[in-house]
Amino acid sequence: MENRKIRVAITHGDTNGIGYELIFKTFAEPAMLELCTPIIYGSPKVAAYHRNVLGLQANFTIISKAEDARDGRVNMLTTFDDEVKVDMGNSSPESAKAAQKALQRATEDFERGVYDALVTAPIDASKTGTGSEPFANDEALRILVNEKMRIALATDTLPVKSVAQAITKDMVIAKATMLQQALKRDFRISNPRIAVLALNPSKVEGTEEKECIRPAIIELAKKSVQAFGPFAADDFFGNGDYEAFDAVLAMYHEQGTTPFRALDLGNGIQFLAGLPIVCTSTDLSAGFDIAGKGVADENPLRQAIYAAIDIARNRQDYDSPLQNPLPKLYHEKRDESEKVRFTIPKKHENKPAE
Amino acid sequence: MENRKIRVAITHGDTNGIGYELIFKTFAEPAMLELCTPIIYGSPKVAAYHRNVLGLQANFTIISKAEDARDGRVNMLTTFDDEVKVDMGNSSPESAKAAQKALQRATEDFERGVYDALVTAPIDASKTGTGSEPFANDEALRILVNEKMRIALATDTLPVKSVAQAITKDMVIAKATMLQQALKRDFRISNPRIAVLALNPSKVEGTEEKECIRPAIIELAKKSVQAFGPFAADDFFGNGDYEAFDAVLAMYHEQGTTPFRALDLGNGIQFLAGLPIVCTSTDLSAGFDIAGKGVADENPLRQAIYAAIDIARNRQDYDSPLQNPLPKLYHEKRDESEKVRFTIPKKHENKPAE
Repeated sequence: MENRKIRVAITHGDTNGIGYELIFKTFAEPAMLELCTPIIYGSPKVAAYHRNVLGLQANFTIISKAEDARDGRVNMLTTFDDEVKVDMGNSSPESAKAAQKALQRATEDFERGVYDALVTAPIDASKTGTGSEPFANDEALRILVNEKMRIALATDTLPVKSVAQAITKDMVIAKATMLQQALKRDFRISNPRIAVLALNPSKVEGTEEKECIRPAIIELAKKSVQAFGPFAADDFFGNGDYEAFDAVLAMYHEQGTTPFRALDLGNGIQFLAGLPIVCTSTDLSAGFDIAGKGVADENPLRQAIYAAIDIARNRQDYDSPLQNPLPKLYHEKRDESEKVRFTIPKKHENKPAE
Repeated sequence: MENRKIRVAITHGDTNGIGYELIFKTFAEPAMLELCTPIIYGSPKVAAYHRNVLGLQANFTIISKAEDARDGRVNMLTTFDDEVKVDMGNSSPESAKAAQKALQRATEDFERGVYDALVTAPIDASKTGTGSEPFANDEALRILVNEKMRIALATDTLPVKSVAQAITKDMVIAKATMLQQALKRDFRISNPRIAVLALNPSKVEGTEEKECIRPAIIELAKKSVQAFGPFAADDFFGNGDYEAFDAVLAMYHEQGTTPFRALDLGNGIQFLAGLPIVCTSTDLSAGFDIAGKGVADENPLRQAIYAAIDIARNRQDYDSPLQNPLPKLYHEKRDESEKVRFTIPKKHENKPAE
């Protein structure tokens, strides 16, 4: 990675949405190709259709495998050959399937190490279901990021009725520890401070706070994870307390996403932490209401690409001192043969000048 | 009410908090006494102590019963004679009890009709428990109000684990209907538009949306309640969609309070709708962190008083055409005696001029 430009895979998202518009507008800025080499996981035909409808000046180079990507170009990888009917602004099973195919190909390619980070253009989660992000699973921690805050979701795709039973002491410890690790390794914050939100409003502080969240915070301190709280979400965001912390751990999806979007400046992104892959996305919907109109703001995608590049580089910096550790000079003596290793060979011995 | 100045009862709140500071600063503006006649439910001793600590110029007239209140004065009603130790900024059972006594007295006085609206200064809900607002009950609907939005809480003091089971079709219909009635009678909006939030995030739309909220919205339409949704809370507040509606019905406490406080300009108030009494309060905590420092902003209390006055007047305007209905001129004929009533007496008969 260090010897070549960072390679960013970008999936095209829902083909009836604003994915291609965001991509073309982002790379209309020539400096973007100085920062990274994009590989668009999509369809040249669909891309050309969007380009014509939007009347954008956009050049791309069609490639058939990621290894053929070249620096200084928008590399367009053909992820499927089927004809896809584009029906701007209308969510369809066909367009969701086209989005899925691109993600599928990107997932496979990641195993071969042909790119350094993945950015996904928006899709319609209600149509694609759980497959919307191939890497999202229990191992992953979704973190919402903008200029002012980072909010991690301890539980994510759970209905409200199942949230309370999912809050356990072990779960809170595990998620806070993952968050700390992501802050250190992916955001390069050496001793991060984490605010943990309460599950219940302050008026009705319940069993989950007493039995799970508070004990978890005490145990986290013993493990050198600086976690504070639990804080009632409404006052926490109302008072701007998030400014005092490096990240916030929310207990359920909307506890994090609602204040994040309410307070957002429109450039919010999502990052899936805790995975081997660096995977970011915009915090946008598929944009069916504005698809094909040319009014979509590409800045969220640009921010998602910046974040993916930063995180990929941060991980490298964080990991590199550990990759080729110096041989230990002092270690446990196992047997007498160890003596030999620490014996200075005769030929190197300094001899006093005669 | 129409022939005298509107009377506003104001309870002093937690006596170790910012209640008296808010009250004195509010009525330091002489125009406030033109708008209303305040009756402070409190303790002259505690009031005097706060006045001295804060170094405020504040005059009040001590009265022993609400009927003695006079216009143009800050009437200070002695609600208890006990000595109360004031320990600024420290929540104590004693200060919470002092807050309770004032509320208790105000509740009793309401029955006698000696004031028109009640405004409660902030208290520490975690100390006083359910008794914090004497009128809050299942009949009441809490509405958060600021310049930009009104958010009603369909469920309020429930832990998260009990929320899902409380969401029923009948409950949503009942709360939306109460909200419509409050918007019409208390805010004088003739045909209000109500946004109903979903319980679950959009990714995991669940049984509550399908079986309770959507059917409720359909049935509300039949009852001429203009309800729309269900909307996912995060996108709803993120996109500023609340601007298109007269009010929002949130399914649980923090779904409403978190975006309200995050987006608030610091002047938010709470109103308990659906009750015979007009009862408002600030959307503030007891302010133990700033008590006694003289830095509390009184504007939220002023806004709560304005709202109480407006709502009391609106209710009067709304109800007055119904109070003294004109006698019906045409009605069902019951028996032959009716004939007599409609017979023009002989003496009034116009006789042709001779």
